Amino acid sequence: MRHPVLKREIPSLGEAPGALIPVGEPQSGETSLSWIEYDAETLNETVCRDVEQALAQAPTGKVSWLNVYGLRDPEALKRLGSHFGLHPLVLEDILNAGQRPKVEDYGDYLFIVSRVFDYPLDGSRLVSDQVYMVLGEGFVLTFQARPIGVFDAVRDRLRRQRGQVRRKGVDYLAYALLDAVIDDYLAVHARFNERVEQVDGRLLSGNDHGLLRQVQRLKRDCLKLRRALLPLREVLLTLNRSEDGLFAPETQLYLRDAYDHTVHVLESLEMSREMVSDMLDLYLSTQSNRLNLQMRKLTVLTMIFMPLTLIAGIYGMNFEHMPELKWHYGYHAVLGAMALLTSGLAWAFWKRKWI
Amino acid sequence: MRHPVLKREIPSLGEAPGALIPVGEPQSGETSLSWIEYDAETLNETVCRDVEQALAQAPTGKVSWLNVYGLRDPEALKRLGSHFGLHPLVLEDILNAGQRPKVEDYGDYLFIVSRVFDYPLDGSRLVSDQVYMVLGEGFVLTFQARPIGVFDAVRDRLRRQRGQVRRKGVDYLAYALLDAVIDDYLAVHARFNERVEQVDGRLLSGNDHGLLRQVQRLKRDCLKLRRALLPLREVLLTLNRSEDGLFAPETQLYLRDAYDHTVHVLESLEMSREMVSDMLDLYLSTQSNRLNLQMRKLTVLTMIFMPLTLIAGIYGMNFEHMPELKWHYGYHAVLGAMALLTSGLAWAFWKRKWI
Amino acid sequence: MRHPVLKREIPSLGEAPGALIPVGEPQSGETSLSWIEYDAETLNETVCRDVEQALAQAPTGKVSWLNVYGLRDPEALKRLGSHFGLHPLVLEDILNAGQRPKVEDYGDYLFIVSRVFDYPLDGSRLVSDQVYMVLGEGFVLTFQARPIGVFDAVRDRLRRQRGQVRRKGVDYLAYALLDAVIDDYLAVHARFNERVEQVDGRLLSGNDHGLLRQVQRLKRDCLKLRRALLPLREVLLTLNRSEDGLFAPETQLYLRDAYDHTVHVLESLEMSREMVSDMLDLYLSTQSNRLNLQMRKLTVLTMIFMPLTLIAGIYGMNFEHMPELKWHYGYHAVLGAMALLTSGLAWAFWKRKWI
Amino acid sequence: MRHPVLKREIPSLGEAPGALIPVGEPQSGETSLSWIEYDAETLNETVCRDVEQALAQAPTGKVSWLNVYGLRDPEALKRLGSHFGLHPLVLEDILNAGQRPKVEDYGDYLFIVSRVFDYPLDGSRLVSDQVYMVLGEGFVLTFQARPIGVFDAVRDRLRRQRGQVRRKGVDYLAYALLDAVIDDYLAVHARFNERVEQVDGRLLSGNDHGLLRQVQRLKRDCLKLRRALLPLREVLLTLNRSEDGLFAPETQLYLRDAYDHTVHVLESLEMSREMVSDMLDLYLSTQSNRLNLQMRKLTVLTMIFMPLTLIAGIYGMNFEHMPELKWHYGYHAVLGAMALLTSGLAWAFWKRKWI
Amino acid sequence: MRHPVLKREIPSLGEAPGALIPVGEPQSGETSLSWIEYDAETLNETVCRDVEQALAQAPTGKVSWLNVYGLRDPEALKRLGSHFGLHPLVLEDILNAGQRPKVEDYGDYLFIVSRVFDYPLDGSRLVSDQVYMVLGEGFVLTFQARPIGVFDAVRDRLRRQRGQVRRKGVDYLAYALLDAVIDDYLAVHARFNERVEQVDGRLLSGNDHGLLRQVQRLKRDCLKLRRALLPLREVLLTLNRSEDGLFAPETQLYLRDAYDHTVHVLESLEMSREMVSDMLDLYLSTQSNRLNLQMRKLTVLTMIFMPLTLIAGIYGMNFEHMPELKWHYGYHAVLGAMALLTSGLAWAFWKRKWI
Repeated sequence: MRHPVLKREIPSLGEAPGALIPVGEPQSGETSLSWIEYDAETLNETVCRDVEQALAQAPTGKVSWLNVYGLRDPEALKRLGSHFGLHPLVLEDILNAGQRPKVEDYGDYLFIVSRVFDYPLDGSRLVSDQVYMVLGEGFVLTFQARPIGVFDAVRDRLRRQRGQVRRKGVDYLAYALLDAVIDDYLAVHARFNERVEQVDGRLLSGNDHGLLRQVQRLKRDCLKLRRALLPLREVLLTLNRSEDGLFAPETQLYLRDAYDHTVHVLESLEMSREMVSDMLDLYLSTQSNRLNLQMRKLTVLTMIFMPLTLIAGIYGMNFEHMPELKWHYGYHAVLGAMALLTSGLAWAFWKRKWI
Repeated sequence: MRHPVLKREIPSLGEAPGALIPVGEPQSGETSLSWIEYDAETLNETVCRDVEQALAQAPTGKVSWLNVYGLRDPEALKRLGSHFGLHPLVLEDILNAGQRPKVEDYGDYLFIVSRVFDYPLDGSRLVSDQVYMVLGEGFVLTFQARPIGVFDAVRDRLRRQRGQVRRKGVDYLAYALLDAVIDDYLAVHARFNERVEQVDGRLLSGNDHGLLRQVQRLKRDCLKLRRALLPLREVLLTLNRSEDGLFAPETQLYLRDAYDHTVHVLESLEMSREMVSDMLDLYLSTQSNRLNLQMRKLTVLTMIFMPLTLIAGIYGMNFEHMPELKWHYGYHAVLGAMALLTSGLAWAFWKRKWI
Repeated sequence: MRHPVLKREIPSLGEAPGALIPVGEPQSGETSLSWIEYDAETLNETVCRDVEQALAQAPTGKVSWLNVYGLRDPEALKRLGSHFGLHPLVLEDILNAGQRPKVEDYGDYLFIVSRVFDYPLDGSRLVSDQVYMVLGEGFVLTFQARPIGVFDAVRDRLRRQRGQVRRKGVDYLAYALLDAVIDDYLAVHARFNERVEQVDGRLLSGNDHGLLRQVQRLKRDCLKLRRALLPLREVLLTLNRSEDGLFAPETQLYLRDAYDHTVHVLESLEMSREMVSDMLDLYLSTQSNRLNLQMRKLTVLTMIFMPLTLIAGIYGMNFEHMPELKWHYGYHAVLGAMALLTSGLAWAFWKRKWI
Repeated sequence: MRHPVLKREIPSLGEAPGALIPVGEPQSGETSLSWIEYDAETLNETVCRDVEQALAQAPTGKVSWLNVYGLRDPEALKRLGSHFGLHPLVLEDILNAGQRPKVEDYGDYLFIVSRVFDYPLDGSRLVSDQVYMVLGEGFVLTFQARPIGVFDAVRDRLRRQRGQVRRKGVDYLAYALLDAVIDDYLAVHARFNERVEQVDGRLLSGNDHGLLRQVQRLKRDCLKLRRALLPLREVLLTLNRSEDGLFAPETQLYLRDAYDHTVHVLESLEMSREMVSDMLDLYLSTQSNRLNLQMRKLTVLTMIFMPLTLIAGIYGMNFEHMPELKWHYGYHAVLGAMALLTSGLAWAFWKRKWI
Repeated sequence: MRHPVLKREIPSLGEAPGALIPVGEPQSGETSLSWIEYDAETLNETVCRDVEQALAQAPTGKVSWLNVYGLRDPEALKRLGSHFGLHPLVLEDILNAGQRPKVEDYGDYLFIVSRVFDYPLDGSRLVSDQVYMVLGEGFVLTFQARPIGVFDAVRDRLRRQRGQVRRKGVDYLAYALLDAVIDDYLAVHARFNERVEQVDGRLLSGNDHGLLRQVQRLKRDCLKLRRALLPLREVLLTLNRSEDGLFAPETQLYLRDAYDHTVHVLESLEMSREMVSDMLDLYLSTQSNRLNLQMRKLTVLTMIFMPLTLIAGIYGMNFEHMPELKWHYGYHAVLGAMALLTSGLAWAFWKRKWI
């Protein structure tokens, strides 16, 4: 029962708040910054290796989106922060992996934290990653530790000029990115359900004691997803109700739709939780039932042997006057009686479906 | 433990929001559009095969209701949408089957999503279907995947000029349709209760292990109904409290009544849930009780054979001086003593109601 | 597990709302309408057999109370309704038995629905009945299916000029009637507690498996009472907070008192629910404990017979050189050793309180 | 499982509200009324036997506190009520023992109901008593059924001029009395915890089945305390937030402190409830564990005797050619082998810690 | 199950509120008062032994922080209180150890109570301590019973001029101290999780009955932490929303961050609670499973010996005509048959994985 998430979530104890010390698992991946700048007609993409290069190419005048992977260098982040006027607490949050989803209004920009999950198909653990978004006037910044492809679909739509994302402003881009995060939850939840079905199938066939642990892991995964989704729902509600003008009324309709999707996933999760909890009940009941059946079979056999042993014991007594002992076929009669008794009992038990 | 609902509820992942790609189970049924147009004196009904035909015959000036079955063609839906000025998100929702009940105010019209259920009497699974309603100035649009007859009663009342529905406006029609949906829940809940009673009867008579699964399915059906009803209650509350003038004050009274009915079904569902949960307890307790009784009977029999075997063993000892062995009727005396002991024990156990 | 309440609660499916079709169990009782009209000095009582007669004698100018028993005729109800200006939905609710407690403000009058219970002392089921009240300017109408005497005490106080009810207005009368309903709950709850004690007593003495069903029925009765009381509390809260002038400020104080009583019954019910739930735990624990004790007794007896059988087996061996077999008192010595061993084991088990 | 509290809490069913009929257990104690009248310099105490005498000596112009014990005479109470202008509902509440804690604002005065508990050290049941307080301009009235000393500390402080109570007004006196009630809860809770520890100690040492009932009683006592404290917290919150001028802003600070104490006791109660619930789990687990251990010991012994009996049986067979039977030390060899086998099995079981 | 916390939490029963009588465990540590006074350029530290000395050196004009350890002398505290204008209730709270976290606004200053925990690594109990803070104009006072080092990191940052704490005002200092308290919770929670893992490891390896108690203790520790954190969250929310000007808008951002951290710890605690609860289930299931396995093994062995004993019994019968007894190798044949039967049964059981 390791608990890696909790361990790496401890921020820099004793450090000044806002001190930029990277917290969390060291990320082996390299830093990569990519600009996407577009309007309805044109779209430019630039990929840079470091912050200096990225800031030098900072576009202006259009909708521009800077996506940053694996930025672990506090100094570089500080330069980025001062270029976009970000508050030290925003930068601290971006460096500290263990944040709960939230939205914070810093006046000129919104800072949105959300969490995406990866549920590998090979049966390994549910892992989570943080996605940070800054939505300012004319630009969106997104930060991720590793390239996990949650925004690939949006990038693709931008490139292929599909949907209305190219015709709309930066607020719609922010919505589209959030919507991609929620779509990701739908996919993770579908995979979670597959695993629930796998474990459920094994539940009926075998009596592996390790299943209990697996069911409990499913339960905990369910809780982790819920714990990330609940505040995300609050984030969407807050964005939906905010009246600070960063989101156009038209985009608010889309945010309301995204909110509905989140509620929908949450309710499906609730359903899955119910299923996992039923599996626990079923596991315990199945185990108890199977053992009871075994016990019954064994008791039935005991029931058959007991009278036979008694009969053998009776004819093993040493009385001088036991007429049966003298009979020529006494022994065979007793063996026959034993066979009869056994069949009779077996038939009676079989009729009651005990064997 | 298949989970078909969840699977088909995943919207078009990675697609632009508002993109019209039909999601959900392919519906084998054909598309059918029917206009009902009426005032207190006259009523016209037209059934069309495609959207073009329906739009060409679009009535004006009276209360008109367009009911659409099985419309899966995005292009046709788009034409319909642009004729009535519907938002792309409304059209997207209509194509995506997995929506939770909600009401959305788009200014000129209300968009209401609800869910109806079908609980076949042959014991098969609870299936659900979506019903969409658009309430605009002078018209109501309803969308269903399959003709399941939830609105038949309203249609009938309109034709036979029963009730006040013909004398009232489009808002009353919308209320009547919602009321029909709620009446449907009452019928489904009654059938659910019948099934609960069926399973409950089998619970007392047999000890089929498969019953646990059935009880758990009832529990889950109950949850599904509840999950659809809870947001429907919110829909009615919102409509009840809205002050946008789409509903006349007189109709608001009827909406309040429909709200009361929804709360009533929800409370009855709660009661059913309690019953199903009691059934689970009863199942586990009955199973344990029955096995305990068997165990007791078997132990009692063991109790009877043990002393008998000991007696036989004692007279099987090979001591030279065992006076009883010499007695002429020693053997018969021992057999008699065994019979006496057996009867005595049997009588004692019978008196304690152990056998 | 019949569920009669749910069955008769299904309103007229497919009927137009406000259609007056009597729903619920057919009531064998006859219709009876009684007017009570009073002020501080005088009181007139009139009992009528039909609505026409009652309306002809409708009093004016004083506080007047019309109590109606068993009115199942929609036409007569319609006439009554039009005389007092009642909304069709009010009349529909009065005919449909399965309403949840509520208060509805129709402008000129309040419509109050509550539920009274009958808990027969002979151990039969908890049955409930609906009480409807209309409070208008100068009059109160009450509707009941059967005469169950919940308002007898109020009628008595009016006749005997006890209390302040004769000196006060129609609002105080309405309060007094509601208070009578709440007093009824107190009585039903007391009887419920008596039954809980009965079942609890049998729980300790016997191990009847049918008790589980009885405890579950108590649990469900408790839920039914709670389900009727919770909305009644809301009714009183609403009346208490309403500022529409139907209740004088002085009467509001009394309503607040009635509200307190309702909360009090609800909390006592919660306590009873806790008791019933404890009974379930106790039942299961007692059952398991009793069986364990039996098992132990039987195992102890097995423990005693096993070594004895072994000893008998040893001296039943056929070795040629077994010195003990030759001893003259060998047999008696072995029997004595067996007796000693048995007493020793019995003493050891008795000391550990196992037998 | 008697439920005396509920029984005596039923108010006079069928009586007019405000009718002064004493409800609850008849109190054997005599009536006693005591005036305490004080300012910073002087303090007068008068003890009277009846209401007439007390009203004749009613002080004026200073802070005065009338404490009444055991007043069961409705007429006397009515005279007292009319002297201080109390509403009939207040008098009715004072006569009816089963009130839940509340505060009611009657304009000129506040009426505060609270509940105090007595948890006798001799192990008998938790009993509760009602304390009523009327806080008017310049006077405080308190009513108790029996002298249980909850206000003794306040009276003492007043007499000895300790604390600031003498320098402050009537609102501070009311606060001091409420604070005394809350201090009483702290003491009762401490005694409750002692009893929890007692039962917990017996839980580990013995396996008395009666313990389950005791643990359940503790659970119910906990619920009773909670049920009295929760509304008391509401009372303090209401007083704290009220702006009717009866409490000076300075006294409000003290009320906030009393509120904090109430919350503190409630949270400690929650902790105790958790402990009692853990005790239930532990009881069931301990019982099951102990029986399992016994079963194991017995099964181990069975395991030892079974092979020995088989060996004896084998050498009891009557084959003509069994070489071992002819051996001179065959018998001793078999006995030795039995001893060896027994020791071996015993050692194996001992090593696995089974015996 | 001692409950020391509850015992020492009883304030001075019967004492006047605001009476300064030290309540709680006597603290062996000595009193120590230390001033830290700083602005962006300079920092002075003074450590005093008594209050007189400390007040004589009270700095002015800059940000100054007085930290007090172990002040148990009511007179000295009173002098301190009158110097800073503290309300008697504040002083009473500081002397009484058992306070729940809260913030109180006394107009000129805020009084903040929080609780810190110590979770010794040697496996001993979770102990808690109170931390009091007074935030006034230009000064912060902190009170602790013992030096537990929760503020060491802040002191260090002040000395080393790290972070922005030196450049900011007294409100930021207060924030930094609260943040240190929250960081402490993170550390305690991490250590709690380590212990959970330890107990979890032992859960899988052994079947020590004492583990149940340990798991319950973990559960209770979890509750204690939660009970201290929940009101602390409220404190931060209150500070965050207060508009009394004690906190600059810039510092409010930091408070919001601290609030987020608290919510984060609370959610992690919830996760830990789930883990501990799963451990309980696993413990009970493992115990039952292990015993069932033992039972099965023993029953299997019984199953093997029963037929063997029967065979031996049969050939121990004394019939005159039993042909097998005459066979020369009859005995060896029977022994061989026994061996065969044993191996067959053993193989069958082994195949079913029963042994």
